[in-house]
Amino acid sequence: MTEQITLYTAKAKICPFSHRVEIALAEAKVGFSRFEIDLSNKPEWYAPKVNPASKVPAIAYGGPQVSPDLPSPDSVKLTESLILVEFIADLQPDSALLPKDPVQRAKARFFIDAVSTKFLPAYMGPIARGTPFESLWDALAQLQALLPADKTYALGDEYTAADIAITPFLARMEVWLTNDIGIYKEGEGKKASEYFFEGDRFARLVKYWTAIKARESFKQTFDAMLTPGRMKDYIKEKYSAKFAPLRAQAQAAAVAAAA
Amino acid sequence: MTEQITLYTAKAKICPFSHRVEIALAEAKVGFSRFEIDLSNKPEWYAPKVNPASKVPAIAYGGPQVSPDLPSPDSVKLTESLILVEFIADLQPDSALLPKDPVQRAKARFFIDAVSTKFLPAYMGPIARGTPFESLWDALAQLQALLPADKTYALGDEYTAADIAITPFLARMEVWLTNDIGIYKEGEGKKASEYFFEGDRFARLVKYWTAIKARESFKQTFDAMLTPGRMKDYIKEKYSAKFAPLRAQAQAAAVAAAA
Repeated sequence: MTEQITLYTAKAKICPFSHRVEIALAEAKVGFSRFEIDLSNKPEWYAPKVNPASKVPAIAYGGPQVSPDLPSPDSVKLTESLILVEFIADLQPDSALLPKDPVQRAKARFFIDAVSTKFLPAYMGPIARGTPFESLWDALAQLQALLPADKTYALGDEYTAADIAITPFLARMEVWLTNDIGIYKEGEGKKASEYFFEGDRFARLVKYWTAIKARESFKQTFDAMLTPGRMKDYIKEKYSAKFAPLRAQAQAAAVAAAA
Repeated sequence: MTEQITLYTAKAKICPFSHRVEIALAEAKVGFSRFEIDLSNKPEWYAPKVNPASKVPAIAYGGPQVSPDLPSPDSVKLTESLILVEFIADLQPDSALLPKDPVQRAKARFFIDAVSTKFLPAYMGPIARGTPFESLWDALAQLQALLPADKTYALGDEYTAADIAITPFLARMEVWLTNDIGIYKEGEGKKASEYFFEGDRFARLVKYWTAIKARESFKQTFDAMLTPGRMKDYIKEKYSAKFAPLRAQAQAAAVAAAA
């Protein structure tokens, strides 16, 4: 009998970091209580009793069975999405989340490090800061180069913590690109989407991404999360609302500069 | 019988990232071949055959016994200091490098994450960029707050990967401060040194640091590394040579600005 796990996650799960942990729990088939924190209106007990940094995701582990909004001082509080994914892997060493072989584990961590240090700094650039798509493509090309040619996932034919590190971000990137959401000029997202999904350059990465999307853990935590709407539609709506005025501003500024 | 390990490290080991891996190997009592890369004059085979990023540390693991300067394509090449420390812990699960308990492992990784994201960005500031010492003190205070009050090390009474993450940096910081090496005005390092080592604010952290320095793994990899000179003296000399002209420049600029 394992200890209780309470996951503090983002309301409606727009947060890709929380999404990592939800996928890990689904893959490890670990039971847990799920509590959504409204990031724009955090409950006052959250920082003092769960995470002093006041961020999600966080896990309360062990201690008595309590209501998640009354966290017990007797549970251990853990934070940081990648640490939580490894924690779940450590709790369930027989899951495929992390391989047992030390070399394969090091390779998983190397891929995760590349996601953190190469992909994440580039990933919001074109949509939120208007930087050229090329910096995003460069970062994705570096990750693609780490994928084995003849296997499904980053380490082989098992879906592991390495793949979990990138999954939520590729999911959101697909929503933005295919829906032309971003600060860039109208139409540039669609063009980038065609370049990424239909061109030759990223054929290996798109194949990888297609395999990830077919997994139950992904469908459960992304598409099927909102009823009756789909997560994808929710994210599309949220980000459109955020980036449409930014695009209008950026374009007005460009017109003013040209005048 | 374990596989062969070749560590590619920095010449005379001035590199704190390589130092982490040397400490981990010493703590785990793993035999290895040690090869120093001259960072200012790297051998041409190093990037193509060992680490495409052309950095140290790197490990070649397994494969045939070869001379380190003739690396075999049949060994696995692994990089990134924190990944290598966890790799050594995975190779030697009965060492104390990483605890077995999932909660303790998560806490170790949380401490390591704080070293990477809070301490390292602040640590070279006063010496190399002339930023106020207060940002360094803030970062150190955050780490100190993670140390248990009644135990020796970050996780308890065992010296683990968490402690290894910070050890080489505290060692170098001590050399700079006590020798007044840095871009700051002459005397400010000594003052900062007294504030850190003799004041009340960092009593817990200084006690922690004193325990670390007493370990054989530290003495072997730091003080005793250079014969007949000590590592400390080597680093002192290297950094003095680097920062003395920078201090002179900074002061000349200040005089010019005031004129």
